Amino acid sequence: MIKHRLFSPGPTDVPPEVLGETARPMFHHRTDRFRKMFVEVNAGLRKILQTRNDVLTIAGSGTAGVEAAIACLVPRDKKVLVANGGKFGERWVKVAKVYGLDVDEVVLQWGTALQPKTVKEKLATGAYGAVIVVHSETCTATACDLEAIAKEVAATDAILLADCITAVGALPLKTDQWEVDVVAVGSQKALMLPPGLAAVAVSDKAWKVAEAIEPPCFYLNLKAYRKSAAGNDTPYTPAVSLFRGLKVALDMINETGIEKVWARTARLAEATRTAAEAIGIKVFSHQPSDSVTGLVYPDGVGDDFRKRLQATYGMSVAGGQAQLKGKIFRVSHMGYVDLADTIGLIAAIEYTLADVGVDVEIGKGVVAAARVLKGWR
Amino acid sequence: MIKHRLFSPGPTDVPPEVLGETARPMFHHRTDRFRKMFVEVNAGLRKILQTRNDVLTIAGSGTAGVEAAIACLVPRDKKVLVANGGKFGERWVKVAKVYGLDVDEVVLQWGTALQPKTVKEKLATGAYGAVIVVHSETCTATACDLEAIAKEVAATDAILLADCITAVGALPLKTDQWEVDVVAVGSQKALMLPPGLAAVAVSDKAWKVAEAIEPPCFYLNLKAYRKSAAGNDTPYTPAVSLFRGLKVALDMINETGIEKVWARTARLAEATRTAAEAIGIKVFSHQPSDSVTGLVYPDGVGDDFRKRLQATYGMSVAGGQAQLKGKIFRVSHMGYVDLADTIGLIAAIEYTLADVGVDVEIGKGVVAAARVLKGWR
Repeated sequence: MIKHRLFSPGPTDVPPEVLGETARPMFHHRTDRFRKMFVEVNAGLRKILQTRNDVLTIAGSGTAGVEAAIACLVPRDKKVLVANGGKFGERWVKVAKVYGLDVDEVVLQWGTALQPKTVKEKLATGAYGAVIVVHSETCTATACDLEAIAKEVAATDAILLADCITAVGALPLKTDQWEVDVVAVGSQKALMLPPGLAAVAVSDKAWKVAEAIEPPCFYLNLKAYRKSAAGNDTPYTPAVSLFRGLKVALDMINETGIEKVWARTARLAEATRTAAEAIGIKVFSHQPSDSVTGLVYPDGVGDDFRKRLQATYGMSVAGGQAQLKGKIFRVSHMGYVDLADTIGLIAAIEYTLADVGVDVEIGKGVVAAARVLKGWR
Repeated sequence: MIKHRLFSPGPTDVPPEVLGETARPMFHHRTDRFRKMFVEVNAGLRKILQTRNDVLTIAGSGTAGVEAAIACLVPRDKKVLVANGGKFGERWVKVAKVYGLDVDEVVLQWGTALQPKTVKEKLATGAYGAVIVVHSETCTATACDLEAIAKEVAATDAILLADCITAVGALPLKTDQWEVDVVAVGSQKALMLPPGLAAVAVSDKAWKVAEAIEPPCFYLNLKAYRKSAAGNDTPYTPAVSLFRGLKVALDMINETGIEKVWARTARLAEATRTAAEAIGIKVFSHQPSDSVTGLVYPDGVGDDFRKRLQATYGMSVAGGQAQLKGKIFRVSHMGYVDLADTIGLIAAIEYTLADVGVDVEIGKGVVAAARVLKGWR
């Protein structure tokens, strides 16, 4: 009878309504029925991304989406600026190098984000064709100021490619208004779906750049997806069950309203940070993301804490990656999570800290979180 | 209350047991729980493929699996023989060309398959590093003699890459005994799963060849999957819900026994062909596959037949592709389909032919199918 809650920054908990939808009997995708759903899903994605651009869905993980964008849309004749502030930034550096791009890697101290003025200075040289940033670096729970960075890039001929995998549906993102050329999305985060679907939104500016590029790949050739999308179809067999789950998840989000979902996510993050401070736990990031919070273990506490939290209270938080392994734990605020889950998690964190010998006043964090969340809607 | 049956050669109907499993609450993949499932799924796949080779699973469609193999395993310094007898063979020619391979395309008349002696003659020149074949060409419902082809390739230094997407779990395949170096698998066929998962089995011979190849891709880099698989893990977020569905589907198949599943599939195909002959409908292929049967519409009948079949009896068969559009329809025998579905389909085909004005003696095909299936187990 233990109730399980998944606070990892992907996969996140999937609403029963969505799980149920993914389990409905299979149907064929080369049909009017699928094409109708394709239209609805695309409209729903556009609404969430606040864009009129093409949004192309790919059966694969978020990495497949970002790679497709790098392989098909980044100019070959100029440098590409890649911000590396964690495991995901590091990954996009690797992908860009696989495709032979001239990579200028900006290595950031973990827990800090690429600054708009760095982008401005670099782009002023005229040497860059594209900028690749991670909107919310899952690994360090750090968000960049995507709006300000986009402003700098939009003023040039370069395109901006944003890994918004741990951001879409959680952090404010106004794709068209901010002029973000490429937005990469993953299903298992704030979209409240199982993993296995990626989406890529592409601006006209990016498509124009892409005209000169012969995609060096097949399955991840975005031009093929664009061509099929014109007929409300996908070039290869789509992940039908995830696709129909996406339809339901998008309806849930859009019925609530994306701005409200963003505001809720921000409040859950704020409540978590405030509670952590109240019980003497430090927030790791200098520029914390509202989609996921990284918290530093008190002295003498390590990943045994996470195991106890899960075993006793059914609550799964994520550990740290690479040099942060055993040093931090991470709590997602994305998707299907609310005030009760969050206040309950704070309580369970307090109990578990006490269990592992930390001197903690039970209820101090809970009160702090409850105060932040007063007026929850 | 209409009961729906999907006879398209992918997606196929998914058993409720599997659908239910895919709808269970999400859990995180970087856990012992996932690694345990990973081990079980791999053991199940090896059993079905009759191999001790690595079997690597990728979140993506079957095309992603074949592309991964072509990109990472096909030698660059020699020619590659690609059999093109339909839309899928044609696709692998395109993929091989995207990667700059020196492609020798064997264009086959639709409905015929690559002959082992052609392979023998070509390979005798010593110019080839790999042979790419489609075990069962979905588009023309035609199977090649993979065992005999594998024998020719195994006698040389070349590797054999087989698209077994519409074959694994339906047609006999003894990967190790036949020495098939690379077997590509898709989830939405005889494995009775929704689309969105691919798998690739790779022999030691193929890995040896791959040592000299720097994969020109990231998400589809099989070497990364191999490295992660050594730790019972995947390099990128796996499609968790499909993966756990696969576990249940593999258990169902392996409890029945793969040889029995092959035999059943062959009998359903034979029953369908025999019934078709009895009612005067021609089998399209000269070398028909047992996983899917292509049947030629009688004069004056077109795809309206399929629409009626679905609308009236809830039975979806596939149409023809490209030049076969409106000329044939295709019936899958893969996965979760049995004697009742098949005999029932024959009856519904008879009724529908009569409805569109074909002179057909009701029951003639049904009797023929029932006789073939006598003794069904």
